[in-house]
Amino acid sequence: MRLYVVVITLILGNSFCSFAQQTRKPMLTPGGQPILTPAGTPVFEPSSTASAPLPYANIAQLDSAFMQKTYGEAAKRIIQHALKDSLAYTRLQYMCDTFGSRFSGSPGLERAIDWLLQTMKADGHENVRGEDVKVPAWVRGEESCVMVSPRPYTMSMLGLGGSVATPPGGITSEVLVVRDFAELTRRAAEAKGKIVLFNAPFTQYRATVRYRSEGAVRAAEVGAVASLVRSVASYSMRSPHTGGMRYQDSIVKIPHAALSTEDADIIARMTERGEKVKVCLTMNAQTLPDAVSRNVIAELKGREKPEEIVVMGGHIDSWDVGTGALDDAGGCYATWKALQILKELGLRPRRTLRLALWTNEENGLRGGAEYANRHQNEKHILAFESDGGIFAPEGFAFTGAPELYKTYRAAATLLHPVQSANVKVGGGGADISPLIAQSVPQMNIEVEGSKYFWFHHTHADTPDKIDPLDLNKCAAAIAVMMYIAADLP
Amino acid sequence: MRLYVVVITLILGNSFCSFAQQTRKPMLTPGGQPILTPAGTPVFEPSSTASAPLPYANIAQLDSAFMQKTYGEAAKRIIQHALKDSLAYTRLQYMCDTFGSRFSGSPGLERAIDWLLQTMKADGHENVRGEDVKVPAWVRGEESCVMVSPRPYTMSMLGLGGSVATPPGGITSEVLVVRDFAELTRRAAEAKGKIVLFNAPFTQYRATVRYRSEGAVRAAEVGAVASLVRSVASYSMRSPHTGGMRYQDSIVKIPHAALSTEDADIIARMTERGEKVKVCLTMNAQTLPDAVSRNVIAELKGREKPEEIVVMGGHIDSWDVGTGALDDAGGCYATWKALQILKELGLRPRRTLRLALWTNEENGLRGGAEYANRHQNEKHILAFESDGGIFAPEGFAFTGAPELYKTYRAAATLLHPVQSANVKVGGGGADISPLIAQSVPQMNIEVEGSKYFWFHHTHADTPDKIDPLDLNKCAAAIAVMMYIAADLP
Repeated sequence: MRLYVVVITLILGNSFCSFAQQTRKPMLTPGGQPILTPAGTPVFEPSSTASAPLPYANIAQLDSAFMQKTYGEAAKRIIQHALKDSLAYTRLQYMCDTFGSRFSGSPGLERAIDWLLQTMKADGHENVRGEDVKVPAWVRGEESCVMVSPRPYTMSMLGLGGSVATPPGGITSEVLVVRDFAELTRRAAEAKGKIVLFNAPFTQYRATVRYRSEGAVRAAEVGAVASLVRSVASYSMRSPHTGGMRYQDSIVKIPHAALSTEDADIIARMTERGEKVKVCLTMNAQTLPDAVSRNVIAELKGREKPEEIVVMGGHIDSWDVGTGALDDAGGCYATWKALQILKELGLRPRRTLRLALWTNEENGLRGGAEYANRHQNEKHILAFESDGGIFAPEGFAFTGAPELYKTYRAAATLLHPVQSANVKVGGGGADISPLIAQSVPQMNIEVEGSKYFWFHHTHADTPDKIDPLDLNKCAAAIAVMMYIAADLP
Repeated sequence: MRLYVVVITLILGNSFCSFAQQTRKPMLTPGGQPILTPAGTPVFEPSSTASAPLPYANIAQLDSAFMQKTYGEAAKRIIQHALKDSLAYTRLQYMCDTFGSRFSGSPGLERAIDWLLQTMKADGHENVRGEDVKVPAWVRGEESCVMVSPRPYTMSMLGLGGSVATPPGGITSEVLVVRDFAELTRRAAEAKGKIVLFNAPFTQYRATVRYRSEGAVRAAEVGAVASLVRSVASYSMRSPHTGGMRYQDSIVKIPHAALSTEDADIIARMTERGEKVKVCLTMNAQTLPDAVSRNVIAELKGREKPEEIVVMGGHIDSWDVGTGALDDAGGCYATWKALQILKELGLRPRRTLRLALWTNEENGLRGGAEYANRHQNEKHILAFESDGGIFAPEGFAFTGAPELYKTYRAAATLLHPVQSANVKVGGGGADISPLIAQSVPQMNIEVEGSKYFWFHHTHADTPDKIDPLDLNKCAAAIAVMMYIAADLP
């Protein structure tokens, strides 16, 4: 349970526990599956509190005065350059419009990757390449959830990623509404043969997503024939939210889907009035054989220590609804633009700055696992991810040695012009989490994310939800921080 | 055109021109059709500036001191009583959940009306009855709008109310995107055989709704085979908005539908990039023979002048998507609760206070027209409507003689406790607009409506969008104002 919270925390990237708190257990995907290396062995969390040797010399002297003197001018140039055009936003729009959603296993994702590789080569970036990753290929198919009684009503739903199908005619049964697992336990005797609806109100993602991740297992344990969850959403305009879920081998696999909060509410109110609610859930989802996708890589080779690497990126895959503009084309284009700015300004750091756009974050985390495995013999001095949406930047979050935290805080003092001078404790990201096993320090950008769970995993995650100025500011903050991290003496 | 603006303004109820500005022209529905009496003759706007004789004696003395002295205690009691339970909200939820959308011509609407009549009789209201109204019966049927090229993509759409169907296989054609009618005129030569998309950004409802109302006519005039509009929405989570539209007898009738703003944007960006966008629009909408619906009436009979009437209400019908909680179950239940409060407190005014829940506001305004016709020999001293959604109340708007305006402003000074002490010039409502021809003064409640066009005519118009406290405050403000209007000497 605690581990699960840690992993969710990583995904949120906002209060990630320090290495010292962790024990040697397999790391889990957002859906709760163990993260596997391509060889099929689990990725473990680090077994000790040891972190990597500090990468910088004279680290105590790397204070804000040093940063101002050494990088003040570069930071100014970067920020100015970042704000002068909207090419990153234009490309994000183009990618989302042209290739649609970028779901693991889909042709759309691979076409988007082809185009990214081609444009980054044309831009003149170094070592541009795709690195193959085997990814799951779940296909949604036709699906619906229709109220049969007390009145016919077609609800707004999305099957959850990885769910099994229903029989062809669907599953029709009475709904048992519970607010949490404790209520399900109390009412276990009522669940047999029913469809359980977990109607947990949104509090925080990490708390509420449990019903999406674990709901099918917990409902099946007490004899339910299918399970539904109230969408994990902080706001709704009858918008269903998909997302990852998991099964357990020992427990029968039942279909699992999300309803819009409005439709969960209707069912809940009807049952509170003493009405019996029957629904027909129909899903013909399939899990096809694994497909080949790619992590997208480009570099700015280090001028002194090219073998030392700062890796930064987002994930190029999305769910199969919407076009994944916030989740996570924004992260991809903020980090792409950071690399582009440094290249255009001729700012080549001492160490190599690598852009990695990981694949299959959403329903497998295979891209992040494959990256950690393939590059395990390289020396990563920092791993950075942007995967909390692109909104107004507010700074960074960092997990690693206290001396490094102090250093990056000092670097961030150059970021007042883009409102990013704050560095919180506890940073990370799903795709860089497998690098924790190699004791690589973790960082993410922090943004004003109060609307993130309005759009997360919905049809409404589209480019209009991103303000181009926010994207430029995020890119500026990332470019300055990554340049300094890769360049410090 | 000006008339049209007047009618739309009535619907918005926020800046209705005074009688003096109007000329003798037929009044139009929101869709732009003439409003007809049941005999089939048009309802005309008033031909002169004459307004009805003032209904109150010694009107100059009806100032705020008078109101405080005469009605201060009653207002306090009403407000306290209004805030003490949430029965109105509970009934609103029940009605929306149980009967679903309440579209003209649908069994759901008539079942909701049966239930309303039954509960109002059980509550002990006076003269509870349904008054028959013949209403149009348009049925949406299956519909879709799918991008065929440059990539296959199913868009988020809703056919517009009253639209004709496409042929069974749909209409597939290239899209011509224009921002306004002027651009369509400039590019008329390009429109022949195409599907025109009016992609007008939302400014104000009255300005933007023109493309929904008139788009099919204007597109057909230049040879288009179908027309699409960007949804009339001030915010979107890929939410299409339906609504009324009109044809002209002399112009070929082409299918007309709304896209979510996100999908209109995708098409617009693609065409701006020089891509040809082809879509397939399929609609099998039908207009069935007129059906019978009912205006719902209940009264609190006047104790001195029962033949003089203050009528208040909202419209009981909704569009066929969502459950019309804001549009306009909220208006119905705010006015129902106002009547209920006065009854429960034993506050019987001098004149009759009549609750009217009009039918068919959305796609015909036949309920309002029939009410004006059937009750034309009665003496209405004020007509009030709530049809701008239920949000935090901000006061009232009024159209009528300046002396009456002053009187109602004085009455509103008792409404500071529910933040409703303001009375603006220019009030009205679609259903009470036919009473303008009888020179009946018009009033509506004003609310903090900044989110109204987020939900208007969408699947997301559901009870959760209303705060029960706002409903109670609106009811309190309406009860006080209507009581005073009906009771003044």
